[in-house]
Amino acid sequence: MNSVTDKLQSVRHASRAVSALSCEEKDTVIKAVAKKIDHSRDAILSENQKDVELAKKAKMSKAGLHLLELTQNKINDLLYGMQELASMEDPIHQTLKSVELNEGLELYCVSYPLGVIGVVFENIPEVLIQVCLLCLKSGNAVIFKGGKESMHTQHILFSLVQEASEECKVTKEWVALVDAKQDLKKLLDQQEHLDLLITRVSQKTTKLISDRAKIPVLHQGRGLCHVYVDDECDVDMAVKVCYDSKCQNPAAGNALETLVVHKAIAATFLPRLRDMLSMANVRLLGDDAVLKVLGIEHATHKDWGAEYNDLVLSITIVESIDDAIGHINQYSSKHTDGIVTKDKHKAKKFMQHVDSASVLWNCSTLFSDGYRYGLGGDAVVSTGKFHARGPVGMEGLVTYKWKVIGNGNLVSDYYVEEPKKFTHKMIDKRYPLE
Amino acid sequence: MNSVTDKLQSVRHASRAVSALSCEEKDTVIKAVAKKIDHSRDAILSENQKDVELAKKAKMSKAGLHLLELTQNKINDLLYGMQELASMEDPIHQTLKSVELNEGLELYCVSYPLGVIGVVFENIPEVLIQVCLLCLKSGNAVIFKGGKESMHTQHILFSLVQEASEECKVTKEWVALVDAKQDLKKLLDQQEHLDLLITRVSQKTTKLISDRAKIPVLHQGRGLCHVYVDDECDVDMAVKVCYDSKCQNPAAGNALETLVVHKAIAATFLPRLRDMLSMANVRLLGDDAVLKVLGIEHATHKDWGAEYNDLVLSITIVESIDDAIGHINQYSSKHTDGIVTKDKHKAKKFMQHVDSASVLWNCSTLFSDGYRYGLGGDAVVSTGKFHARGPVGMEGLVTYKWKVIGNGNLVSDYYVEEPKKFTHKMIDKRYPLE
Repeated sequence: MNSVTDKLQSVRHASRAVSALSCEEKDTVIKAVAKKIDHSRDAILSENQKDVELAKKAKMSKAGLHLLELTQNKINDLLYGMQELASMEDPIHQTLKSVELNEGLELYCVSYPLGVIGVVFENIPEVLIQVCLLCLKSGNAVIFKGGKESMHTQHILFSLVQEASEECKVTKEWVALVDAKQDLKKLLDQQEHLDLLITRVSQKTTKLISDRAKIPVLHQGRGLCHVYVDDECDVDMAVKVCYDSKCQNPAAGNALETLVVHKAIAATFLPRLRDMLSMANVRLLGDDAVLKVLGIEHATHKDWGAEYNDLVLSITIVESIDDAIGHINQYSSKHTDGIVTKDKHKAKKFMQHVDSASVLWNCSTLFSDGYRYGLGGDAVVSTGKFHARGPVGMEGLVTYKWKVIGNGNLVSDYYVEEPKKFTHKMIDKRYPLE
Repeated sequence: MNSVTDKLQSVRHASRAVSALSCEEKDTVIKAVAKKIDHSRDAILSENQKDVELAKKAKMSKAGLHLLELTQNKINDLLYGMQELASMEDPIHQTLKSVELNEGLELYCVSYPLGVIGVVFENIPEVLIQVCLLCLKSGNAVIFKGGKESMHTQHILFSLVQEASEECKVTKEWVALVDAKQDLKKLLDQQEHLDLLITRVSQKTTKLISDRAKIPVLHQGRGLCHVYVDDECDVDMAVKVCYDSKCQNPAAGNALETLVVHKAIAATFLPRLRDMLSMANVRLLGDDAVLKVLGIEHATHKDWGAEYNDLVLSITIVESIDDAIGHINQYSSKHTDGIVTKDKHKAKKFMQHVDSASVLWNCSTLFSDGYRYGLGGDAVVSTGKFHARGPVGMEGLVTYKWKVIGNGNLVSDYYVEEPKKFTHKMIDKRYPLE
């Protein structure tokens, strides 16, 4: 029962049971997991510290450690998301569309689980909880391939999920965990057993998976995010939004990396921002125009493509909003980009033409997140456009089925001398056979 | 201007113009194309006959010829779909979701075009018209790789689309056509320039594309469709539904290939069906149980996996609805499967557990089609579950963008002594900046 194939078969089998659970049954499990986590904070943090100590010995980067280390705040966020998830409507068996094709012939489009979802993650242990509960609520079974970086933490979290499931009389086989290095390659070959693969891993591993996987994949996108500060802005607001976007959680994917400033506001805005950021010891780099205003380091071309994940900010000055949009569309990782302006028309233009998953006006880039968007967490933040874009909540983990109910209807009747004609009338009707 | 890369660059450029067209502008082009096709029926049919003659010389199969040859009926269907498409709502710039995250902080999920879509097709020339207009209405530009089989037809249809676009003052560069054999491989490498690839080709070419493409792909699925005739059915209805599903258009992907019959009704139903099908010269094959009732050919194991696309039908007898569902889930291509029964609970079970894109109760399998479903046509019928399933209309050709409007909101305010709390209230509000 230890090979990837064996585990996948047992997960596939359990997926049928999970897809048939009622919303109430699924919510009971989610609440039971939340309770277990809340009651096991000390044990979780202590296992997590083992991972952190090992990671320090292995010289993990500061940003990496920041993601690996659990805190009471992170657990609070996790519990908050779970509470919200348990209060959300069932995404499954929803009638997404209903159409009368003709008298006595009705079409329904109804939501369904994808089936079995594979998740590959490395040093963010809470991914296991977030993603498995999103999978559960959307009726899917799930197999995780955890990284060695968070080995201790992932195992205690995984056990808590299985224990809670059993206590709720739900088969614990709906969630599985493998962690050997060779298991990853085995997962990539399982097109028969996996309906979707989610990756939350380094760029290197992402590339390996992209090159080999025959299964549909949603990749965690890079987070090279921008804020454009327009000349017509509330300077006070701009300083606060930039400070929050850069400093509140610099290791996060939605944190600000490059600031784009309109030339007409640079001399007023930049010194005030520098004063504020220097309190947080943010290292600043600027282009030639910025250096005329601030005595900071010179940015090189590489900086416009750099995701620092740290207290570092590159700054460029532009001539116009069009130049700002141009810079952002060239360098953004298409994750999250924001604008600070008082001008509605410029905001409209920016949000229309910046081709990123999330675009924000007059607020911190950090709001771009599944919990904060009210999705009950996110399984992944996709910077692709296919299937799901941006923070992927339950809606990204479902498919649908077309169901037609007739009373003996024939297509030949539409090709006779006096043919029947389709009405295609939208009817606001729930699929009657659930 | 003749290389694939050059054409793609010009299509990418035009895609920006197409994404900005109003619904009215797009509908004007659709109507102009419809008018041109209606007025050019003779020229189109005459070009099509050249393809048919060449295909006959090249010994194309009867089913292949049936798909290649245009008829007045096929043109009527095409025009009907275009008329419907032109009357449909714009799928772009629709607010799919709106949430108040907190006071003064609103989230909108808004639909957007995917960008540039590549379409590979072979011997169904009207694909060019169907798919290009679905792309246009969903704000996408499109490049076609046509097969040599429909060379003459595709060129006249392509010219009509470009002419109609120019007459409507829309850049004709939004649609491109390449047809050299080596162009296909070039398209597969264009992850920078193509957002989606749609394939409507033979299984062999599909496999080649699957193995090589780095772009998201929606494949035309195989059409191995079943009808299950339950013991509690209206026999008269069952005979008519099976006849229609098999004979009205046997070359179609949604045509019936294998009939699954409950043992208790076999002796009553099968002779009546045979009498009806023999009028259409349908060749019948059956398993041992069927042969006890009908003097027909013996089906081999291969027949359960065969997509005949012709006047051939394999028949199997089962002990129960569970056996029927088992047979279908094992052999179906997951395109379309139907049930004929009077029993609502059995219909419910069948439609829940048969894991196919379309499941139908008491009607012909041929209804499973984009026109007939009221989607204004389909770009492809996907038997996968990712992004879009079954007949893919405009909704499968769009993505979305998350847009947040704030007034200086900071995430730090949610981590202070008296933290702000998210409200996540669904608001039924259109994105205000369109």
